[in-house]
Amino acid sequence: MFNERLPKEIREEIQNQDIIGQTSGMCPGYAQGNLVILPKAYAFDFLLFSMRNPKPCPILEVVESGKILSLTAPGEPVTKVFPKYRVYEDGKLSGEYTDIEHLWQEDFVTFILGCSFTFESALLEAEIAMRHIEQNKNVAMYQTSIPCKEAGFFKGNVVVSMRPIKSEEVMTAVEITSKYPKVHGAPIHIGNPLAIGIHDIEKPDFGDPIEIKEGEIPVFWACGVTPQSVAMTVKPPVMITHAPGHMLITDIKNSSLEGVK
Amino acid sequence: MFNERLPKEIREEIQNQDIIGQTSGMCPGYAQGNLVILPKAYAFDFLLFSMRNPKPCPILEVVESGKILSLTAPGEPVTKVFPKYRVYEDGKLSGEYTDIEHLWQEDFVTFILGCSFTFESALLEAEIAMRHIEQNKNVAMYQTSIPCKEAGFFKGNVVVSMRPIKSEEVMTAVEITSKYPKVHGAPIHIGNPLAIGIHDIEKPDFGDPIEIKEGEIPVFWACGVTPQSVAMTVKPPVMITHAPGHMLITDIKNSSLEGVK
Repeated sequence: MFNERLPKEIREEIQNQDIIGQTSGMCPGYAQGNLVILPKAYAFDFLLFSMRNPKPCPILEVVESGKILSLTAPGEPVTKVFPKYRVYEDGKLSGEYTDIEHLWQEDFVTFILGCSFTFESALLEAEIAMRHIEQNKNVAMYQTSIPCKEAGFFKGNVVVSMRPIKSEEVMTAVEITSKYPKVHGAPIHIGNPLAIGIHDIEKPDFGDPIEIKEGEIPVFWACGVTPQSVAMTVKPPVMITHAPGHMLITDIKNSSLEGVK
Repeated sequence: MFNERLPKEIREEIQNQDIIGQTSGMCPGYAQGNLVILPKAYAFDFLLFSMRNPKPCPILEVVESGKILSLTAPGEPVTKVFPKYRVYEDGKLSGEYTDIEHLWQEDFVTFILGCSFTFESALLEAEIAMRHIEQNKNVAMYQTSIPCKEAGFFKGNVVVSMRPIKSEEVMTAVEITSKYPKVHGAPIHIGNPLAIGIHDIEKPDFGDPIEIKEGEIPVFWACGVTPQSVAMTVKPPVMITHAPGHMLITDIKNSSLEGVK
């Protein structure tokens, strides 16, 4: 049902709070976006951090003033277009909301970041199975020992998402995802969780545990949770993000995010 | 004589003020960089402006805290590695200095931006003549009617540099420069100055007038003067730039700036 409708139509239902759930699989062919909203005092460092770490923090849009998006959801307010938001105060989750209009501050800067849903569509089209989608779970995500490049306040390690891929399909998965540098790009590690500081593959730090079957290799991509995870360690007085899986369905076509970096 | 020496050696002479002149032609094969230093209050908007306008404002390095460069001139202070600096106060030139150590403010953020000297080397290697170099002049630069994408405080039009190219060599020049997206990339206009708001090609806004001979086409590239020109219109309380032609000779090889964007 969602397949035939335009992002704008779905976003209207989200704005009306008729949709408040996860957006996985909605409007295939269109990119979905993560959210980070920070006070302007943190915006320079965060923007620089994102630029220095384009794999985990691919920037789709920055709104430096006001609530209105222009590239991802032209003319619509960032306060209403995500199905669910999380508010962090001093690094602690203080609430979940379906609308953040009442929480808006004049000095807020909005960052919309690329999300791996984009390259997952491309993988599925190539008939590479995504177990977490088949099983209707959230993807498994892990803190790693791979440091991000620091920028001002912001420092921390890369968070990765893991997908078990049949060994004979790994190279195809690399090829396909490397075409999407603006949404995480090629894997950052293949095969050995310990090598990147993951000690127990069965216990993800975020999302759901995903079984790795015989003949499958765990493949790790830089994950859009990284900037939120890093921003939280800084404990800004206030930060607003999307709730996991509750993304912005943008007007940007996945195909327009292709292109060698 | 400069051809055989490393950037670090030349920079040492610059730091000692044994070299205080233009850097054109020094250390061929190594990228040279433009400079913009702004107080942190302007840094977010300027960084966002540069990201939104990568052709005129290609970022090589940002130093968010302190004076020490790490990518372009590792371990060296930005206050001493340019042969000559310009200081603007409230948008007006207030002085030229060969060292800005005494002017340093704790809240300064440094931006090193790519410069067209990089692609000029590549053009010369392909035996495409650069008249301003032959005649030992500065390149001709013009204000255009092409708007940059705005970001916060910063708005204004693209400044271009013009090089007369033999008509049969224009496509080669396009091909070569398009390989350098990190230092202005392909031309932004070919052939008709009026189309981009240049009414008198003989009167450049910056640099020297350069003759266009029979059989030559004026080719226009986005120019690194753009961010300075735009920043000046904002009239920040203080802004420091390099003096025209007095660049940073970086450790970055031109070849490493190649690559499709």
